Amino acid sequence: MISGVNHLGIAVRDLEASMELYRSIFRVETFHRERVEEQKVEIASFSVGGVLLELTAPTSEDSPIAKFLEKRGEGIHHVAFTTDAVSADLERLAGDGVQLINKTPQRGAHDMLIAFLHPKSTGGVLMELCEPQKTSQTS
Amino acid sequence: MISGVNHLGIAVRDLEASMELYRSIFRVETFHRERVEEQKVEIASFSVGGVLLELTAPTSEDSPIAKFLEKRGEGIHHVAFTTDAVSADLERLAGDGVQLINKTPQRGAHDMLIAFLHPKSTGGVLMELCEPQKTSQTS
Repeated sequence: MISGVNHLGIAVRDLEASMELYRSIFRVETFHRERVEEQKVEIASFSVGGVLLELTAPTSEDSPIAKFLEKRGEGIHHVAFTTDAVSADLERLAGDGVQLINKTPQRGAHDMLIAFLHPKSTGGVLMELCEPQKTSQTS
Repeated sequence: MISGVNHLGIAVRDLEASMELYRSIFRVETFHRERVEEQKVEIASFSVGGVLLELTAPTSEDSPIAKFLEKRGEGIHHVAFTTDAVSADLERLAGDGVQLINKTPQRGAHDMLIAFLHPKSTGGVLMELCEPQKTSQTS
């Protein structure tokens, strides 16, 4: 079930320059840095009251972010929602006629299971569902 | 000081149709409805874990949302951050060289004081600052 906004993906050309800009506006002290090979991106994220702003730069010309930058320029790329069961949500949404970009969950940043919904089905908004990994339990 | 993400403004052409779509995806039960004459928009918003998704339709052809729809189509229009002092933030940001769309706070939805920063200064992201009204206190 979708329970909150996890992050906003913001497409940027130059990660270092963007970090400097966001550091100034939001007085950010530290960023989480990560390369996500599956998505061909490098990210720098920070929290604003629990919601991450995820600055995302392409690491390859065929990255979806490179294509977005070419077409639209820098800006908000997607909004990601936290769920506890991405597979079940995908099944429900597909049943409701929502077009899925990922029919099965992929690996995203922060080791989450993620899947994108097609903006054609969601009023032009690229939406990601993401399921944080459950921390291992000792029993 | 900026303390969190208040809402995501989503530009839509047809408010009723979009409410139906979001009702289906997020299982929304009730929307907050409001007309904001100053911004020439009508909104329907709902909370996803404390962050509002604010569906925003133009009420006039010269509404900023009408212009956005014409140029970009439906999609995420802006991200709004909660602050406890919008005027002080504007002063600080202007001092840091950030271009402001509103040099002084305006009235927005939910009776908040709001101001927009120019996306030219914020990496292509239209950002709004919003200061919720303090509830009146009896002393």
